[in-house]
Amino acid sequence: MKKKEEMIVLGIDPGTATTGWGLIQCSKATMQQSHKALRYIAHGVIKTPVGMIMGERLLMLHTELTKVLVKYKPQVMVIEQLFFGRNVKTGMTVGQARGVILMAAAQAHLEPFEYQGLWVKKKLCGDGYADKKKIQETVRKILKLRLVPKPDDAADALGLAICYLQNV
Amino acid sequence: MKKKEEMIVLGIDPGTATTGWGLIQCSKATMQQSHKALRYIAHGVIKTPVGMIMGERLLMLHTELTKVLVKYKPQVMVIEQLFFGRNVKTGMTVGQARGVILMAAAQAHLEPFEYQGLWVKKKLCGDGYADKKKIQETVRKILKLRLVPKPDDAADALGLAICYLQNV
Repeated sequence: MKKKEEMIVLGIDPGTATTGWGLIQCSKATMQQSHKALRYIAHGVIKTPVGMIMGERLLMLHTELTKVLVKYKPQVMVIEQLFFGRNVKTGMTVGQARGVILMAAAQAHLEPFEYQGLWVKKKLCGDGYADKKKIQETVRKILKLRLVPKPDDAADALGLAICYLQNV
Repeated sequence: MKKKEEMIVLGIDPGTATTGWGLIQCSKATMQQSHKALRYIAHGVIKTPVGMIMGERLLMLHTELTKVLVKYKPQVMVIEQLFFGRNVKTGMTVGQARGVILMAAAQAHLEPFEYQGLWVKKKLCGDGYADKKKIQETVRKILKLRLVPKPDDAADALGLAICYLQNV
């Protein structure tokens, strides 16, 4: 019943060392309204040890993310688009993390939406270069949380999910 | 018994559209000799449809590669290192493909070796910029095959496996 009446959205901020995730929901009855009733569900991070070999870290990321997908059964996944900029090596490891995340999404029959970090920040805070604290505080306000969501990777993930729901 | 006496090596040339793979073996008795007895086992490519969504393609790549790993049980995997050069977008999709390949390796308890394409070409053909035909022909000669291995992604993968065995 919940599945029919609620739209559950999972935001993902991908990385090999830390992948942030955040889940929010919105009643489908308010989906067409400009002021949607967004409700926080959960957030967290998947961390993998630096000393572990890359394949094991990716396997761990896939396993932990699959647990989140199985537990909360989101109908939508939103993932931050890879930005290749200053650091090519970071870009490569993020690409590898994205590979197993997209695979886990496919196994859960989800086709992720992809948003640029810059666009998300602009949408949430009115500033594409907003710092992490500003994003955390904005997410806290929108979701009416008592405390700011931590760490910032998880707040970013909640921000992605919010952007999806504010755009549909 | 085969496992004990033979070293089976799987070479992988990663890509989302086409991943080449090639398997060769070497008797452990000749491993310490300068002229090792390399024996060709099999080669092939895993192709994923362009029109399919990325997560599904990566899942397909993972599934097909796992079949190869289960069937041939290699003790070593060698994968071509990602080269970020002219095309950043290609680099990203190769990174994603590498993610699921490294994960499949970890699931098979393998920790892949990584070689640069340039180094492999130099090692095989004496020229880091050897073209695809030259690599195919060199691989054919080394493995004493009647025909050149096709397509070139699979020949490259066999080349990676050869380089590993010629270096141990």
